[in-house]
Amino acid sequence: MIVILKPDATEEQLQHLIKKTEALGLKAHISRGVERTIIGFIGPEDVLRVTPLEVFPGVESVVPVLAPYKLVSREFKKELSVIKLKDDIHIGGKQIIVMAGPCSIESHAALLEIAKEVKKAGATVLRGGAFKPRTSPYDFQGLGEEGLKYLQEVGQATGMATITEVMDARDVELIGKYSDIYQVGARNMQNFTLLKELGMTQKPVMLKRGLSATIKELLMSAEYILSKGNFNVILCERGIRTFETATRNTLDINAVAVVKELTHLPMMVDPSHATGYWNFVGAAAKAGVAAGCDGLMIEVHSNPQQALSDGAQSLLPEKFESLMGELRLVAQAVLRQI
Amino acid sequence: MIVILKPDATEEQLQHLIKKTEALGLKAHISRGVERTIIGFIGPEDVLRVTPLEVFPGVESVVPVLAPYKLVSREFKKELSVIKLKDDIHIGGKQIIVMAGPCSIESHAALLEIAKEVKKAGATVLRGGAFKPRTSPYDFQGLGEEGLKYLQEVGQATGMATITEVMDARDVELIGKYSDIYQVGARNMQNFTLLKELGMTQKPVMLKRGLSATIKELLMSAEYILSKGNFNVILCERGIRTFETATRNTLDINAVAVVKELTHLPMMVDPSHATGYWNFVGAAAKAGVAAGCDGLMIEVHSNPQQALSDGAQSLLPEKFESLMGELRLVAQAVLRQI
Amino acid sequence: MIVILKPDATEEQLQHLIKKTEALGLKAHISRGVERTIIGFIGPEDVLRVTPLEVFPGVESVVPVLAPYKLVSREFKKELSVIKLKDDIHIGGKQIIVMAGPCSIESHAALLEIAKEVKKAGATVLRGGAFKPRTSPYDFQGLGEEGLKYLQEVGQATGMATITEVMDARDVELIGKYSDIYQVGARNMQNFTLLKELGMTQKPVMLKRGLSATIKELLMSAEYILSKGNFNVILCERGIRTFETATRNTLDINAVAVVKELTHLPMMVDPSHATGYWNFVGAAAKAGVAAGCDGLMIEVHSNPQQALSDGAQSLLPEKFESLMGELRLVAQAVLRQI
Amino acid sequence: MIVILKPDATEEQLQHLIKKTEALGLKAHISRGVERTIIGFIGPEDVLRVTPLEVFPGVESVVPVLAPYKLVSREFKKELSVIKLKDDIHIGGKQIIVMAGPCSIESHAALLEIAKEVKKAGATVLRGGAFKPRTSPYDFQGLGEEGLKYLQEVGQATGMATITEVMDARDVELIGKYSDIYQVGARNMQNFTLLKELGMTQKPVMLKRGLSATIKELLMSAEYILSKGNFNVILCERGIRTFETATRNTLDINAVAVVKELTHLPMMVDPSHATGYWNFVGAAAKAGVAAGCDGLMIEVHSNPQQALSDGAQSLLPEKFESLMGELRLVAQAVLRQI
Repeated sequence: MIVILKPDATEEQLQHLIKKTEALGLKAHISRGVERTIIGFIGPEDVLRVTPLEVFPGVESVVPVLAPYKLVSREFKKELSVIKLKDDIHIGGKQIIVMAGPCSIESHAALLEIAKEVKKAGATVLRGGAFKPRTSPYDFQGLGEEGLKYLQEVGQATGMATITEVMDARDVELIGKYSDIYQVGARNMQNFTLLKELGMTQKPVMLKRGLSATIKELLMSAEYILSKGNFNVILCERGIRTFETATRNTLDINAVAVVKELTHLPMMVDPSHATGYWNFVGAAAKAGVAAGCDGLMIEVHSNPQQALSDGAQSLLPEKFESLMGELRLVAQAVLRQI
Repeated sequence: MIVILKPDATEEQLQHLIKKTEALGLKAHISRGVERTIIGFIGPEDVLRVTPLEVFPGVESVVPVLAPYKLVSREFKKELSVIKLKDDIHIGGKQIIVMAGPCSIESHAALLEIAKEVKKAGATVLRGGAFKPRTSPYDFQGLGEEGLKYLQEVGQATGMATITEVMDARDVELIGKYSDIYQVGARNMQNFTLLKELGMTQKPVMLKRGLSATIKELLMSAEYILSKGNFNVILCERGIRTFETATRNTLDINAVAVVKELTHLPMMVDPSHATGYWNFVGAAAKAGVAAGCDGLMIEVHSNPQQALSDGAQSLLPEKFESLMGELRLVAQAVLRQI
Repeated sequence: MIVILKPDATEEQLQHLIKKTEALGLKAHISRGVERTIIGFIGPEDVLRVTPLEVFPGVESVVPVLAPYKLVSREFKKELSVIKLKDDIHIGGKQIIVMAGPCSIESHAALLEIAKEVKKAGATVLRGGAFKPRTSPYDFQGLGEEGLKYLQEVGQATGMATITEVMDARDVELIGKYSDIYQVGARNMQNFTLLKELGMTQKPVMLKRGLSATIKELLMSAEYILSKGNFNVILCERGIRTFETATRNTLDINAVAVVKELTHLPMMVDPSHATGYWNFVGAAAKAGVAAGCDGLMIEVHSNPQQALSDGAQSLLPEKFESLMGELRLVAQAVLRQI
Repeated sequence: MIVILKPDATEEQLQHLIKKTEALGLKAHISRGVERTIIGFIGPEDVLRVTPLEVFPGVESVVPVLAPYKLVSREFKKELSVIKLKDDIHIGGKQIIVMAGPCSIESHAALLEIAKEVKKAGATVLRGGAFKPRTSPYDFQGLGEEGLKYLQEVGQATGMATITEVMDARDVELIGKYSDIYQVGARNMQNFTLLKELGMTQKPVMLKRGLSATIKELLMSAEYILSKGNFNVILCERGIRTFETATRNTLDINAVAVVKELTHLPMMVDPSHATGYWNFVGAAAKAGVAAGCDGLMIEVHSNPQQALSDGAQSLLPEKFESLMGELRLVAQAVLRQI
């Protein structure tokens, strides 16, 4: 922790600050410059978390030296984490994992039809929402447990791993019975109650970045899960909110490389939400692979005109298949495989 | 709902669209222009919610005509809502309500000391967090039920109404036993599970705008609560996330006038979170009153240097008192009172 | 300047860094912590501007200690600047200055009519654009020098000071002949060529904040003008670009208090551009005054339905007059006057 | 143009609106719905540009039907434009063009050294700034005409085309004598005076997207140049400003696919500015190629520690060379070549 004093800070203010921080076990190194005095505090930076140095008289600004996350950092664990999703399906290695399926689970038959198609094209994880976070209370809210059953059955029938969204800490146990992977949606990235609950399971959790969350906040939310004991966390960039309205969200492609540098956890990209329109999904997916992501989550629907949610961003199965062919080439170009 | 066709849309595509929408009970009015054909759909716009017209071949764009919210709108209820917080404390009328207190409840004694001070200065609602949403799992997470008890006791001792944050649908009942008003924090504005649960109570709910939520989304979240039967909802602008880093958030002061035009619900401003630094709180609070807000929520702490959270944005009781004097003058200038 | 080293930085990297910076006349203070080594550089921080310390091996991050601006800062000049606009019209004192008029100058008669109205209501500076920055090449681009003549004549006829926008360094001399104050629009805030040219005059310059400029960048642009010798600079918040679309821009009301703390220059608010809709202009103007601004710029048009630009955000003269009455009360409440 | 009336709009207001617009040559199609009346105006939409329909009484909102740009649109010109940069160097075809070089031109020798390296690695256009837009007036402002001479000489010596930034309409002629391509920087994207001046030349212009410009605004700025007669315009995404601070800007990778759909003009990506740190440049460059861009602009410096600007984002020549190898593979994967 570094503290920069105001130009007119008094010696008394400086001594007050040092006395208080020494009482917390920190040692102060003082550099008196021509225009400002700077103090570097040596010791357990964490104790300063509950002492807001900014409010001490004479303090101009406070600069943290250490990142606020630990377990998720590359400093804590240098080698990249490879996480088992199911049997021989792993994420974080050379293989890029593709998760595909409809936004919402609508019926057993429809889900099975889509699953067969995406499996054939190369996807290994089936996605589908049973509990849907909808902006409007009047929109379709998902099939609930019935949808979870369909997901499990279709997953078993096709040999795919399954992923579905959990929105409520009370549903963690229920969803855990049916799905291989928990998905935490963007709107729940800072639902800390839910994160703690998921930290007490051992199932993989895919944590999506919030619409206006910084990369640091994404890592802090992952830290919540790891700090409770569950290290099987996968991150996912799904577009952030900016002033641009030509697309539904702005895919922060930079985030892929930044995250891979800061953490050992795998990083995915969701090109469907990050663009919001099916005709831009392909470009975004290819960009994600080229930038170094470990997985993709793509919405596919056999009949987007009748999709109960997010039809505009869903690919038809035949488009998905042809995109997979293109993605395979890009993956090879960056020495990965799909 | 208005649909604009692509310049090269075919007659067949147009007929396909009309056939599908007529099956939903809508009537199509077609305007053929030189460069584009436009279709206005007359009828229950809601049925289009689950039919993504954007994906129909030949469609360029879709423009909704009606706002997606109903019960919260001024169209539904022209006169402004006045909501009873406790006994003779109401929000939404001529009186501007000031809610004040510490960020976190730290002890019975500390809370009582602050409560007496803010009461004396003119605040009528006591705030204080018992369950704290903290970015880091290593930060102070609140006293839980013990804190709730202190809040209730201090509220009764001082004759103030009380407000505290609820983060988890499972805590709705517990918190309801102790607090007069539920606070939904910015990070939970789209925690739809929680909103539905609060909609089934009859207690006032103060709903804070999310960091990157549009005004329309704020109203949609309020609609969740009203649609379940609880009309006692108070909105609160607490700063949005932008590129500016000189303050913790950017107070969207425009939102006050916009919200007052669109909805009958009361609108508050939280200048503490909207600035993040105590020295800017006064200016933001005065701006809020001048812009027409119905209430203010202000953090006050007797000893910010030892606050367990948000010390940097807390006012000392004496600063709060002098600010209240200034706010009274501004309130009078806009024909309100504090 | 503070440099934080990477956890695995070598002694050799540290010595390389010290050697290079000592050659620039800086002295290094080293604090070796448990997890990081920190170096505080004492000496003329400016020399580091052209030496990107971030790229030195072993460096994790670089933290500047001093603000990058000087002449505009309160450290350089403690007392607030009062700037003479014309004869007895000054900005920066107890009096809040109101600049009003049409977006574009359309004719001599129309300008005179509006000028008389706003003068009567209490405005002392007449605004009107002769050179218009329009997003589209097909939109009305202004009357040019003819418009400037009208502005000067109407200013003289009514005894008002005048302000008009300068977009091109080549027009500085021309506009200087006709107008009392130069206006630099948001899109030109970082047109450094223009800023330098204006710095070589002695006329007041009103510098509007760019749509996505930070407060620090606004001050740096002002510094360009002051550094060339012209200290008569007035700043203006006119709304920033965010994700919110209910208003044309988001008025960053916090910026008023932040700017007043950092600089001695006067700070204005433009509620017309900051909202984009006439019905929200009043609330934004009152918020600006309550937050402590030194002036307001408001668009007024006698016939918004025929305005050649920005009709939607223009007030009718009678609405302007009644707003001025309200503003007078708010000004008194914050111990200022209009 | 579509106009949606307020629910309580009167018949008189409707007739007033129709009368005014018919006088402008438009024909109104009225659709009376249960909750709203909608009017579709058929005819030359442009005439409505100077008649702000939003301010007519009874109007709730106005929805434009046509894009505000024409010459740049795919509707105007279906086939993609291929623009000649110099001799046999073209952009917009199968070949992806790489422009590389230092941020600022610092000396003839240094520029020549870098040029030889980037040429060898496969770049065909040499970049280098002689006039630099710097946030601070105290930063290095470029060598001016001397730098232009070095650029021309080194371009000729290496057989590369050259590009340099023009910041001032007065410099268009001068820079045109030395450089093959004009670069308009992000801060000048809406310097309309400059755009018009460039529209009157026939040299290629690379127009960079502003930090907070929408894609539509980028296209409108290009329209300024085309509307004056110069169709040789190349667009460039260089990162937008968002709340994320881990990188200097946020590369809006979606913009590549969106722009390629809306316009026939070539689209480039600048991964150096879009990230701000050399270690993220590679990932961003690969993402740009995978997403379908027509060119890349990359900063390269032989000695970033002594670069007079932007050292932190410059690649060393050897890193650039190895990146070019990787880019070649990605280009092949998307059926292009470098």
